[in-house]
Amino acid sequence: MAPLGDKSDTAEEAMVTEAENKPISNILILIAMQTEALPLVNKFQLTGDVDSVFPSGVPWVRYHGIYKDLHLNLIWPGKDAALGVDSVGTVSASLVIYASIQALKPDLIINAGTAGGFKAKGASVGDIYLASDVAFHDRRIPIPVFDLYGVGLRQSFSTPNLLKELNLKVGKLSTGDSLDMSPQDEASISANDATVKDMEGAAVAYVADLLKVPAIFVKAVTDIVDGEKPTAEEFLQNLAAVTAALEKAVTQVIDFINGKCLSEL
Amino acid sequence: MAPLGDKSDTAEEAMVTEAENKPISNILILIAMQTEALPLVNKFQLTGDVDSVFPSGVPWVRYHGIYKDLHLNLIWPGKDAALGVDSVGTVSASLVIYASIQALKPDLIINAGTAGGFKAKGASVGDIYLASDVAFHDRRIPIPVFDLYGVGLRQSFSTPNLLKELNLKVGKLSTGDSLDMSPQDEASISANDATVKDMEGAAVAYVADLLKVPAIFVKAVTDIVDGEKPTAEEFLQNLAAVTAALEKAVTQVIDFINGKCLSEL
Repeated sequence: MAPLGDKSDTAEEAMVTEAENKPISNILILIAMQTEALPLVNKFQLTGDVDSVFPSGVPWVRYHGIYKDLHLNLIWPGKDAALGVDSVGTVSASLVIYASIQALKPDLIINAGTAGGFKAKGASVGDIYLASDVAFHDRRIPIPVFDLYGVGLRQSFSTPNLLKELNLKVGKLSTGDSLDMSPQDEASISANDATVKDMEGAAVAYVADLLKVPAIFVKAVTDIVDGEKPTAEEFLQNLAAVTAALEKAVTQVIDFINGKCLSEL
Repeated sequence: MAPLGDKSDTAEEAMVTEAENKPISNILILIAMQTEALPLVNKFQLTGDVDSVFPSGVPWVRYHGIYKDLHLNLIWPGKDAALGVDSVGTVSASLVIYASIQALKPDLIINAGTAGGFKAKGASVGDIYLASDVAFHDRRIPIPVFDLYGVGLRQSFSTPNLLKELNLKVGKLSTGDSLDMSPQDEASISANDATVKDMEGAAVAYVADLLKVPAIFVKAVTDIVDGEKPTAEEFLQNLAAVTAALEKAVTQVIDFINGKCLSEL
Protein backbone atom coordinates (compact mmCIF):
# COMPACT_ATOMS: atom_id res chain seq x y z
CA MET A 1 0.00 0.00 0.00
CA ALA A 2 2.80 2.47 0.83
CA PRO A 3 4.17 3.32 -2.65
CA LEU A 4 0.69 3.54 -4.12
CA GLY A 5 -0.38 5.73 -1.20
CA ASP A 6 2.57 8.05 -1.72
CA LYS A 7 1.89 8.46 -5.42
CA SER A 8 -1.80 9.15 -4.95
CA ASP A 9 -1.04 11.64 -2.15
CA THR A 10 1.08 13.71 -4.54
CA ALA A 11 -1.56 13.49 -7.26
CA GLU A 12 -4.18 14.42 -4.68
CA GLU A 13 -2.23 17.49 -3.56
CA ALA A 14 -1.91 18.68 -7.14
CA MET A 15 -5.65 18.18 -7.60
CA VAL A 16 -6.39 20.06 -4.39
CA THR A 17 -4.22 23.01 -5.51
CA GLU A 18 -5.93 23.05 -8.90
CA ALA A 19 -9.35 22.92 -7.23
CA GLU A 20 -8.41 25.81 -4.94
CA ASN A 21 -7.81 28.07 -7.93
CA LYS A 22 -10.98 27.25 -9.86
CA PRO A 23 -14.25 29.03 -9.05
CA ILE A 24 -16.31 26.99 -6.60
CA SER A 25 -19.29 25.53 -8.43
CA ASN A 26 -20.78 22.74 -6.33
CA ILE A 27 -21.71 23.33 -2.68
CA LEU A 28 -23.08 20.74 -0.28
CA ILE A 29 -25.01 22.18 2.66
CA LEU A 30 -25.70 19.65 5.42
CA ILE A 31 -28.40 20.55 7.93
CA ALA A 32 -29.58 18.07 10.56
CA MET A 33 -33.11 19.32 11.27
CA GLN A 34 -36.01 19.99 8.90
CA THR A 35 -36.92 23.19 10.80
CA GLU A 36 -33.41 24.50 10.11
CA ALA A 37 -33.37 23.31 6.49
CA LEU A 38 -36.70 24.47 5.07
CA PRO A 39 -36.08 28.27 5.24
CA LEU A 40 -32.98 27.74 3.08
CA VAL A 41 -34.83 25.40 0.70
CA ASN A 42 -37.39 28.19 0.19
CA LYS A 43 -34.83 31.00 0.07
CA PHE A 44 -32.80 29.34 -2.70
CA GLN A 45 -35.91 27.83 -4.37
CA LEU A 46 -34.42 24.35 -4.22
CA THR A 47 -36.40 21.33 -5.35
CA GLY A 48 -36.53 17.88 -3.77
CA ASP A 49 -35.25 14.85 -5.66
CA VAL A 50 -37.83 12.61 -7.31
CA ASP A 51 -35.33 9.79 -7.78
CA SER A 52 -33.07 9.66 -4.75
CA VAL A 53 -29.30 9.63 -5.25
CA PHE A 54 -29.21 7.53 -2.06
CA PRO A 55 -29.90 3.81 -1.60
CA SER A 56 -33.36 2.46 -0.95
CA GLY A 57 -34.26 2.46 2.75
CA VAL A 58 -32.37 5.52 3.95
CA PRO A 59 -34.43 8.59 4.98
CA TRP A 60 -31.90 11.11 3.61
CA VAL A 61 -33.34 13.98 1.58
CA ARG A 62 -31.59 16.05 -1.08
CA TYR A 63 -32.82 19.44 -2.29
CA HIS A 64 -30.96 21.08 -5.13
CA GLY A 65 -30.95 23.97 -7.55
CA ILE A 66 -28.92 26.68 -9.22
CA TYR A 67 -28.30 29.94 -7.37
CA LYS A 68 -26.22 32.56 -9.18
CA ASP A 69 -23.12 30.66 -10.44
CA LEU A 70 -23.49 27.86 -7.89
CA HIS A 71 -25.00 24.42 -7.90
CA LEU A 72 -26.46 24.04 -4.39
CA ASN A 73 -27.19 20.67 -2.82
CA LEU A 74 -28.91 20.90 0.55
CA ILE A 75 -28.93 17.57 2.38
CA TRP A 76 -31.12 16.82 5.37
CA PRO A 77 -30.78 13.35 6.99
CA GLY A 78 -34.59 13.06 7.09
CA LYS A 79 -36.99 11.65 9.64
CA ASP A 80 -36.30 8.38 11.41
CA ALA A 81 -38.57 5.84 9.70
CA ALA A 82 -39.82 4.27 12.92
CA LEU A 83 -40.02 7.33 15.19
CA GLY A 84 -40.66 10.29 12.87
CA VAL A 85 -38.07 12.62 14.41
CA ASP A 86 -35.10 14.24 12.64
CA SER A 87 -32.13 11.88 12.30
CA VAL A 88 -29.80 14.03 14.41
CA GLY A 89 -26.39 13.09 15.77
CA THR A 90 -23.01 11.88 14.61
CA VAL A 91 -23.87 8.44 13.17
CA SER A 92 -26.55 9.76 10.86
CA ALA A 93 -24.50 12.85 9.92
CA SER A 94 -21.41 10.82 9.10
CA LEU A 95 -23.39 8.40 6.91
CA VAL A 96 -25.25 11.05 4.96
CA ILE A 97 -22.18 13.23 4.40
CA TYR A 98 -20.21 10.17 3.24
CA ALA A 99 -22.92 9.12 0.78
CA SER A 100 -23.42 12.72 -0.38
CA ILE A 101 -19.72 13.24 -1.10
CA GLN A 102 -19.66 9.99 -3.07
CA ALA A 103 -22.77 10.88 -5.07
CA LEU A 104 -22.32 14.63 -5.57
CA LYS A 105 -18.55 15.37 -5.48
CA PRO A 106 -18.90 18.80 -3.83
CA ASP A 107 -16.17 21.46 -3.91
CA LEU A 108 -17.07 22.65 -0.42
CA ILE A 109 -19.20 21.45 2.49
CA ILE A 110 -21.13 23.85 4.70
CA ASN A 111 -22.46 22.20 7.85
CA ALA A 112 -25.07 24.65 9.11
CA GLY A 113 -27.30 24.35 12.13
CA THR A 114 -28.18 25.37 15.62
CA ALA A 115 -25.89 24.96 18.63
CA GLY A 116 -25.63 25.60 22.32
CA GLY A 117 -23.35 28.49 23.30
CA PHE A 118 -21.27 29.24 26.37
CA LYS A 119 -21.79 32.74 27.80
CA ALA A 120 -18.49 32.39 29.69
CA LYS A 121 -16.87 32.34 26.23
CA GLY A 122 -18.94 35.28 24.95
CA ALA A 123 -21.86 33.55 23.23
CA SER A 124 -25.44 34.93 23.25
CA VAL A 125 -28.68 33.50 21.84
CA GLY A 126 -28.94 34.36 18.13
CA ASP A 127 -25.17 34.69 17.58
CA ILE A 128 -23.80 33.10 14.42
CA TYR A 129 -20.43 31.36 14.75
CA LEU A 130 -18.01 30.14 12.15
CA ALA A 131 -16.08 27.30 13.79
CA SER A 132 -12.29 27.52 13.68
CA ASP A 133 -11.82 23.97 15.03
CA VAL A 134 -14.09 21.03 15.75
CA ALA A 135 -13.66 18.14 18.20
CA PHE A 136 -15.69 15.51 20.06
CA HIS A 137 -16.47 15.76 23.79
CA ASP A 138 -18.10 12.38 24.45
CA ARG A 139 -15.51 9.90 23.17
CA ARG A 140 -13.30 9.29 26.20
CA ILE A 141 -10.73 6.54 25.54
CA PRO A 142 -8.11 6.76 28.32
CA ILE A 143 -5.37 4.84 26.46
CA PRO A 144 -2.43 6.81 25.02
CA VAL A 145 -3.05 7.99 21.41
CA PHE A 146 -6.56 6.47 21.46
CA ASP A 147 -7.42 9.45 23.70
CA LEU A 148 -6.46 11.83 20.86
CA TYR A 149 -8.36 9.74 18.32
CA GLY A 150 -11.45 10.03 20.54
CA VAL A 151 -11.19 13.81 20.74
CA GLY A 152 -10.74 13.91 16.94
CA LEU A 153 -9.66 17.56 16.77
CA ARG A 154 -9.76 18.97 13.24
CA GLN A 155 -9.39 22.49 11.85
CA SER A 156 -12.12 23.70 9.60
CA PHE A 157 -11.19 25.07 6.16
CA SER A 158 -9.60 28.49 6.65
CA THR A 159 -11.73 31.39 5.32
CA PRO A 160 -10.08 34.63 6.49
CA ASN A 161 -11.70 36.84 3.82
CA LEU A 162 -15.17 35.50 4.42
CA LEU A 163 -14.73 36.15 8.14
CA LYS A 164 -13.54 39.72 7.59
CA GLU A 165 -16.32 40.53 5.12
CA LEU A 166 -19.22 39.06 7.07
CA ASN A 167 -18.04 39.92 10.55
CA LEU A 168 -19.16 36.55 11.97
CA LYS A 169 -18.07 35.42 15.41
CA VAL A 170 -15.32 32.79 15.54
CA GLY A 171 -15.11 30.02 18.09
CA LYS A 172 -14.27 26.39 18.61
CA LEU A 173 -17.05 23.84 18.17
CA SER A 174 -17.42 20.72 20.30
CA THR A 175 -19.65 17.81 19.25
CA GLY A 176 -21.46 15.10 21.18
CA ASP A 177 -24.54 12.91 20.74
CA SER A 178 -26.37 14.27 23.78
CA LEU A 179 -28.42 17.46 23.89
CA ASP A 180 -27.67 17.84 27.59
CA MET A 181 -24.21 18.09 29.17
CA SER A 182 -22.84 15.71 31.80
CA PRO A 183 -19.96 16.76 34.08
CA GLN A 184 -17.64 14.57 31.93
CA ASP A 185 -18.89 16.29 28.76
CA GLU A 186 -18.33 19.66 30.43
CA ALA A 187 -14.72 18.79 31.31
CA SER A 188 -14.06 17.66 27.71
CA ILE A 189 -15.77 20.75 26.23
CA SER A 190 -13.60 22.88 28.49
CA ALA A 191 -10.48 20.95 27.37
CA ASN A 192 -11.62 21.55 23.77
CA ASP A 193 -11.81 25.29 24.62
CA ALA A 194 -15.19 25.34 22.88
CA THR A 195 -17.57 28.30 22.58
CA VAL A 196 -20.33 26.35 20.83
CA LYS A 197 -21.64 22.79 21.18
CA ASP A 198 -23.54 20.77 18.60
CA MET A 199 -24.42 17.17 17.73
CA GLU A 200 -22.90 16.69 14.25
CA GLY A 201 -19.92 18.95 13.46
CA ALA A 202 -16.95 16.77 14.42
CA ALA A 203 -18.43 13.76 12.59
CA VAL A 204 -18.84 15.84 9.43
CA ALA A 205 -15.25 17.09 9.84
CA TYR A 206 -14.01 13.50 10.22
CA VAL A 207 -15.63 12.31 6.99
CA ALA A 208 -14.73 15.48 5.06
CA ASP A 209 -11.11 14.98 6.14
CA LEU A 210 -11.13 11.28 5.11
CA LEU A 211 -12.43 12.16 1.65
CA LYS A 212 -10.44 15.42 1.33
CA VAL A 213 -13.31 17.85 0.89
CA PRO A 214 -12.96 21.27 2.57
CA ALA A 215 -15.64 21.92 5.20
CA ILE A 216 -16.84 24.95 7.14
CA PHE A 217 -19.28 25.09 10.05
CA VAL A 218 -21.91 27.83 10.49
CA LYS A 219 -23.64 27.46 13.86
CA ALA A 220 -26.43 29.62 15.31
CA VAL A 221 -26.83 29.74 19.09
CA THR A 222 -30.30 28.61 20.29
CA ASP A 223 -29.51 28.18 23.97
CA ILE A 224 -26.94 29.10 26.59
CA VAL A 225 -25.48 25.91 28.03
CA ASP A 226 -23.95 27.62 31.09
CA GLY A 227 -27.11 29.68 31.76
CA GLU A 228 -30.07 29.12 34.05
CA LYS A 229 -32.67 27.72 31.63
CA PRO A 230 -32.93 23.97 30.88
CA THR A 231 -31.36 23.30 27.46
CA ALA A 232 -34.26 21.39 25.88
CA GLU A 233 -36.77 24.10 26.84
CA GLU A 234 -34.59 27.03 25.72
CA PHE A 235 -33.67 25.17 22.50
CA LEU A 236 -37.31 24.60 21.52
CA GLN A 237 -38.31 28.18 22.49
CA ASN A 238 -35.64 29.81 20.32
CA LEU A 239 -35.48 27.33 17.44
CA ALA A 240 -37.75 29.22 15.02
CA ALA A 241 -36.26 32.70 15.61
CA VAL A 242 -32.65 31.50 15.51
CA THR A 243 -33.34 29.49 12.38
CA ALA A 244 -34.27 32.76 10.64
CA ALA A 245 -30.91 34.24 11.69
CA LEU A 246 -29.17 31.10 10.44
CA GLU A 247 -30.90 31.38 7.05
CA LYS A 248 -29.71 34.99 6.75
CA ALA A 249 -26.13 34.07 7.67
CA VAL A 250 -25.93 31.08 5.32
CA THR A 251 -27.30 33.24 2.49
CA GLN A 252 -24.57 35.82 3.17
CA VAL A 253 -21.94 33.05 3.16
CA ILE A 254 -23.24 31.64 -0.14
CA ASP A 255 -23.37 35.14 -1.70
CA PHE A 256 -19.76 35.71 -0.62
CA ILE A 257 -18.61 32.36 -2.02
CA ASN A 258 -20.30 32.92 -5.40
CA GLY A 259 -17.70 33.52 -8.12
CA LYS A 260 -14.72 32.83 -5.83
CA CYS A 261 -12.11 30.06 -5.63
CA LEU A 262 -11.39 28.17 -2.41
CA SER A 263 -8.12 30.10 -2.09
CA GLU A 264 -10.04 33.40 -2.09
CA LEU A 265 -12.22 32.48 0.87
CA MET B 1 -43.38 8.91 -1.35
CA ALA B 2 -46.11 6.95 0.46
CA PRO B 3 -47.55 4.78 -2.37
CA LEU B 4 -44.08 4.08 -3.76
CA GLY B 5 -42.84 3.26 -0.27
CA ASP B 6 -45.73 0.85 0.29
CA LYS B 7 -45.06 -1.00 -2.95
CA SER B 8 -41.36 -1.37 -2.38
CA ASP B 9 -41.99 -2.49 1.21
CA THR B 10 -44.08 -5.39 -0.08
CA ALA B 11 -41.47 -6.27 -2.68
CA GLU B 12 -38.81 -6.01 0.00
CA GLU B 13 -40.70 -8.35 2.33
CA ALA B 14 -41.03 -10.93 -0.44
CA MET B 15 -37.31 -10.65 -1.13
CA VAL B 16 -36.51 -11.00 2.57
CA THR B 17 -38.66 -14.14 2.82
CA GLU B 18 -36.99 -15.59 -0.27
CA ALA B 19 -33.56 -14.75 1.15
CA GLU B 20 -34.45 -16.41 4.45
CA ASN B 21 -35.05 -19.72 2.69
CA LYS B 22 -31.90 -19.79 0.54
CA PRO B 23 -28.64 -21.07 1.98
CA ILE B 24 -26.54 -18.22 3.34
CA SER B 25 -23.59 -17.65 1.04
CA ASN B 26 -22.08 -14.24 1.76
CA ILE B 27 -21.11 -13.26 5.31
CA LEU B 28 -19.73 -9.92 6.39
CA ILE B 29 -17.76 -10.00 9.65
CA LEU B 30 -17.06 -6.54 11.10
CA ILE B 31 -14.31 -6.31 13.72
CA ALA B 32 -13.12 -2.96 15.07
CA MET B 33 -9.56 -3.81 16.18
CA GLN B 34 -6.69 -5.42 14.29
CA THR B 35 -5.76 -7.54 17.34
CA GLU B 36 -9.27 -9.01 17.30
CA ALA B 37 -9.36 -9.42 13.52
CA LEU B 38 -6.03 -11.09 12.66
CA PRO B 39 -6.65 -14.45 14.41
CA LEU B 40 -9.76 -14.88 12.25
CA VAL B 41 -7.95 -13.75 9.10
CA ASN B 42 -5.40 -16.51 9.78
CA LYS B 43 -7.95 -19.11 10.86
CA PHE B 44 -10.00 -18.76 7.67
CA GLN B 45 -6.92 -18.08 5.49
CA LEU B 46 -8.41 -14.85 4.20
CA THR B 47 -6.45 -12.57 1.88
CA GLY B 48 -6.32 -8.78 1.87
CA ASP B 49 -7.63 -6.81 -1.09
CA VAL B 50 -5.07 -5.48 -3.56
CA ASP B 51 -7.59 -3.09 -5.14
CA SER B 52 -9.82 -1.73 -2.42
CA VAL B 53 -13.59 -1.89 -2.83
CA PHE B 54 -13.65 1.34 -0.79
CA PRO B 55 -12.98 4.92 -1.95
CA SER B 56 -9.49 6.41 -1.94
CA GLY B 57 -8.55 7.94 1.40
CA VAL B 58 -10.43 5.67 3.79
CA PRO B 59 -8.36 3.30 5.99
CA TRP B 60 -10.90 0.45 5.82
CA VAL B 61 -9.45 -3.01 5.15
CA ARG B 62 -11.23 -5.99 3.61
CA TYR B 63 -10.01 -9.58 3.91
CA HIS B 64 -11.91 -12.24 2.03
CA GLY B 65 -11.92 -15.89 1.04
CA ILE B 66 -13.97 -19.03 0.68
CA TYR B 67 -14.55 -21.22 3.75
CA LYS B 68 -16.63 -24.36 3.21
CA ASP B 69 -19.75 -23.15 1.30
CA LEU B 70 -19.37 -19.57 2.45
CA HIS B 71 -17.86 -16.43 0.99
CA LEU B 72 -16.38 -14.63 4.00
CA ASN B 73 -15.64 -10.91 4.03
CA LEU B 74 -13.89 -9.71 7.14
CA ILE B 75 -13.85 -5.93 7.42
CA TRP B 76 -11.64 -4.00 9.79
CA PRO B 77 -11.96 -0.16 9.83
CA GLY B 78 -8.18 0.12 9.75
CA LYS B 79 -5.75 2.46 11.46
CA ASP B 80 -6.42 6.18 11.73
CA ALA B 81 -4.16 7.77 9.09
CA ALA B 82 -2.87 10.54 11.34
CA LEU B 83 -2.65 8.70 14.67
CA GLY B 84 -2.03 5.05 13.79
CA VAL B 85 -4.61 3.58 16.19
CA ASP B 86 -7.58 1.37 15.29
CA SER B 87 -10.56 3.38 14.03
CA VAL B 88 -12.86 2.31 16.88
CA GLY B 89 -16.27 3.73 17.75
CA THR B 90 -19.66 4.36 16.24
CA VAL B 91 -18.83 6.88 13.49
CA SER B 92 -16.16 4.72 11.90
CA ALA B 93 -18.22 1.51 12.35
CA SER B 94 -21.32 3.04 10.80
CA LEU B 95 -19.37 4.32 7.78
CA VAL B 96 -17.53 1.08 7.10
CA ILE B 97 -20.60 -1.12 7.53
CA TYR B 98 -22.59 1.17 5.22
CA ALA B 99 -19.90 1.10 2.52
CA SER B 100 -19.42 -2.67 2.95
CA ILE B 101 -23.11 -3.43 2.56
CA GLN B 102 -23.21 -1.28 -0.59
CA ALA B 103 -20.12 -2.95 -2.06
CA LEU B 104 -20.57 -6.55 -0.93
CA LYS B 105 -24.33 -7.17 -0.51
CA PRO B 106 -23.94 -9.62 2.40
CA ASP B 107 -26.67 -12.07 3.47
CA LEU B 108 -25.73 -11.70 7.12
CA ILE B 109 -23.57 -9.39 9.25
CA ILE B 110 -21.61 -10.64 12.23
CA ASN B 111 -20.24 -7.84 14.40
CA ALA B 112 -17.61 -9.55 16.54
CA GLY B 113 -15.35 -8.02 19.13
CA THR B 114 -14.44 -7.47 22.73
CA ALA B 115 -16.67 -5.86 25.31
CA GLY B 116 -16.91 -4.88 28.93
CA GLY B 117 -19.16 -7.09 31.06
CA PHE B 118 -21.21 -6.49 34.19
CA LYS B 119 -20.67 -9.08 36.94
CA ALA B 120 -23.96 -7.95 38.53
CA LYS B 121 -25.62 -9.36 35.40
CA GLY B 122 -23.55 -12.57 35.44
CA ALA B 123 -20.63 -11.72 33.13
CA SER B 124 -17.06 -12.97 33.68
CA VAL B 125 -13.84 -12.27 31.76
CA GLY B 126 -13.63 -14.60 28.75
CA ASP B 127 -17.40 -15.12 28.41
CA ILE B 128 -18.81 -14.98 24.90
CA TYR B 129 -22.17 -13.27 24.52
CA LEU B 130 -24.62 -13.26 21.66
CA ALA B 131 -26.55 -9.98 21.99
CA SER B 132 -30.35 -10.22 22.03
CA ASP B 133 -30.81 -6.43 21.79
CA VAL B 134 -28.54 -3.47 21.19
CA ALA B 135 -28.95 0.18 22.20
CA PHE B 136 -26.90 3.36 22.78
CA HIS B 137 -26.09 4.68 26.26
CA ASP B 138 -24.46 8.03 25.43
CA ARG B 139 -27.06 9.75 23.27
CA ARG B 140 -29.24 11.60 25.80
CA ILE B 141 -31.83 13.81 24.07
CA PRO B 142 -34.42 14.77 26.73
CA ILE B 143 -37.17 15.76 24.28
CA PRO B 144 -40.14 13.36 23.81
CA VAL B 145 -39.57 10.78 21.01
CA PHE B 146 -36.04 12.17 20.39
CA ASP B 147 -35.15 10.39 23.66
CA LEU B 148 -36.15 7.06 22.08
CA TYR B 149 -34.27 7.89 18.87
CA GLY B 150 -31.16 8.55 20.97
CA VAL B 151 -31.42 5.18 22.74
CA GLY B 152 -31.90 3.52 19.34
CA LEU B 153 -32.96 0.12 20.71
CA ARG B 154 -32.89 -2.62 18.09
CA GLN B 155 -33.27 -6.40 18.30
CA SER B 156 -30.55 -8.46 16.73
CA PHE B 157 -31.53 -11.13 14.18
CA SER B 158 -33.09 -14.03 16.08
CA THR B 159 -30.98 -17.23 16.06
CA PRO B 160 -32.62 -19.68 18.50
CA ASN B 161 -31.02 -22.80 16.96
CA LEU B 162 -27.54 -21.33 16.92
CA LEU B 163 -27.95 -20.37 20.58
CA LYS B 164 -29.12 -23.85 21.57
CA GLU B 165 -26.36 -25.62 19.63
CA LEU B 166 -23.43 -23.47 20.77
CA ASN B 167 -24.60 -22.80 24.31
CA LEU B 168 -23.47 -19.16 24.18
CA LYS B 169 -24.52 -16.68 26.84
CA VAL B 170 -27.28 -14.24 25.88
CA GLY B 171 -27.49 -10.65 27.04
CA LYS B 172 -28.33 -7.13 26.02
CA LEU B 173 -25.55 -5.01 24.52
CA SER B 174 -25.16 -1.29 25.15
CA THR B 175 -22.95 0.92 22.96
CA GLY B 176 -21.13 4.18 23.56
CA ASP B 177 -18.07 5.99 22.22
CA SER B 178 -16.18 6.00 25.52
CA LEU B 179 -14.12 3.15 26.94
CA ASP B 180 -14.84 4.35 30.47
CA MET B 181 -18.28 4.80 32.04
CA SER B 182 -19.63 8.07 33.45
CA PRO B 183 -22.48 8.06 36.01
CA GLN B 184 -24.82 9.17 33.17
CA ASP B 185 -23.61 6.28 30.99
CA GLU B 186 -24.15 3.91 33.91
CA ALA B 187 -27.75 5.08 34.38
CA SER B 188 -28.46 4.59 30.66
CA ILE B 189 -26.76 1.17 30.58
CA SER B 190 -28.89 0.17 33.54
CA ALA B 191 -32.03 1.47 31.75
CA ASN B 192 -30.93 -0.58 28.71
CA ASP B 193 -30.72 -3.63 31.03
CA ALA B 194 -27.34 -4.41 29.45
CA THR B 195 -24.96 -7.22 30.38
CA VAL B 196 -22.22 -6.18 27.94
CA LYS B 197 -20.93 -2.79 26.78
CA ASP B 198 -19.07 -2.06 23.56
CA MET B 199 -18.21 0.87 21.27
CA GLU B 200 -19.77 -0.15 17.92
CA GLY B 201 -22.74 -2.54 18.17
CA ALA B 202 -25.71 -0.15 18.17
CA ALA B 203 -24.25 1.82 15.25
CA VAL B 204 -23.87 -1.41 13.23
CA ALA B 205 -27.46 -2.35 14.16
CA TYR B 206 -28.71 1.07 13.02
CA VAL B 207 -27.11 0.81 9.57
CA ALA B 208 -28.03 -2.88 9.14
CA ASP B 209 -31.64 -1.97 9.96
CA LEU B 210 -31.64 0.97 7.49
CA LEU B 211 -30.38 -1.28 4.69
CA LYS B 212 -32.36 -4.37 5.77
CA VAL B 213 -29.50 -6.76 6.36
CA PRO B 214 -29.80 -9.18 9.32
CA ALA B 215 -27.11 -8.68 11.95
CA ILE B 216 -25.87 -10.62 14.96
CA PHE B 217 -23.40 -9.54 17.64
CA VAL B 218 -20.75 -11.84 19.15
CA LYS B 219 -18.99 -10.11 22.04
CA ALA B 220 -16.18 -11.46 24.22
CA VAL B 221 -15.74 -10.00 27.71
CA THR B 222 -12.26 -8.47 28.29
CA ASP B 223 -13.01 -6.55 31.47
CA ILE B 224 -15.54 -6.29 34.26
CA VAL B 225 -17.00 -2.80 34.26
CA ASP B 226 -18.50 -3.05 37.76
CA GLY B 227 -15.32 -4.65 39.17
CA GLU B 228 -12.32 -3.21 41.01
CA LYS B 229 -9.76 -2.96 38.19
CA PRO B 230 -9.52 0.14 35.95
CA THR B 231 -11.15 -0.66 32.59
CA ALA B 232 -8.27 0.40 30.31
CA GLU B 233 -5.72 -1.66 32.28
CA GLU B 234 -7.92 -4.78 32.51
CA PHE B 235 -8.87 -4.45 28.83
CA LEU B 236 -5.24 -4.34 27.67
CA GLN B 237 -4.23 -7.18 30.03
CA ASN B 238 -6.92 -9.56 28.76
CA LEU B 239 -7.11 -8.52 25.11
CA ALA B 240 -4.87 -11.26 23.67
CA ALA B 241 -6.34 -14.18 25.68
CA VAL B 242 -9.94 -13.12 25.14
CA THR B 243 -9.30 -12.59 21.45
CA ALA B 244 -8.39 -16.28 21.21
CA ALA B 245 -11.72 -17.19 22.82
CA LEU B 246 -13.48 -14.85 20.40
CA GLU B 247 -11.79 -16.53 17.42
CA LYS B 248 -12.99 -19.94 18.64
CA ALA B 249 -16.55 -18.71 19.15
CA VAL B 250 -16.78 -16.96 15.77
CA THR B 251 -15.44 -20.11 14.08
CA GLN B 252 -18.15 -22.17 15.80
CA VAL B 253 -20.79 -19.66 14.67
CA ILE B 254 -19.52 -19.75 11.07
CA ASP B 255 -19.41 -23.58 11.12
CA PHE B 256 -23.00 -23.65 12.39
CA ILE B 257 -24.18 -21.18 9.71
CA ASN B 258 -22.52 -23.09 6.85
CA GLY B 259 -25.16 -24.78 4.66
CA LYS B 260 -28.11 -23.22 6.49
CA CYS B 261 -30.71 -20.60 5.56
CA LEU B 262 -31.40 -17.52 7.69
CA SER B 263 -34.66 -19.13 8.83
CA GLU B 264 -32.73 -22.14 10.17
CA LEU B 265 -30.52 -20.05 12.47
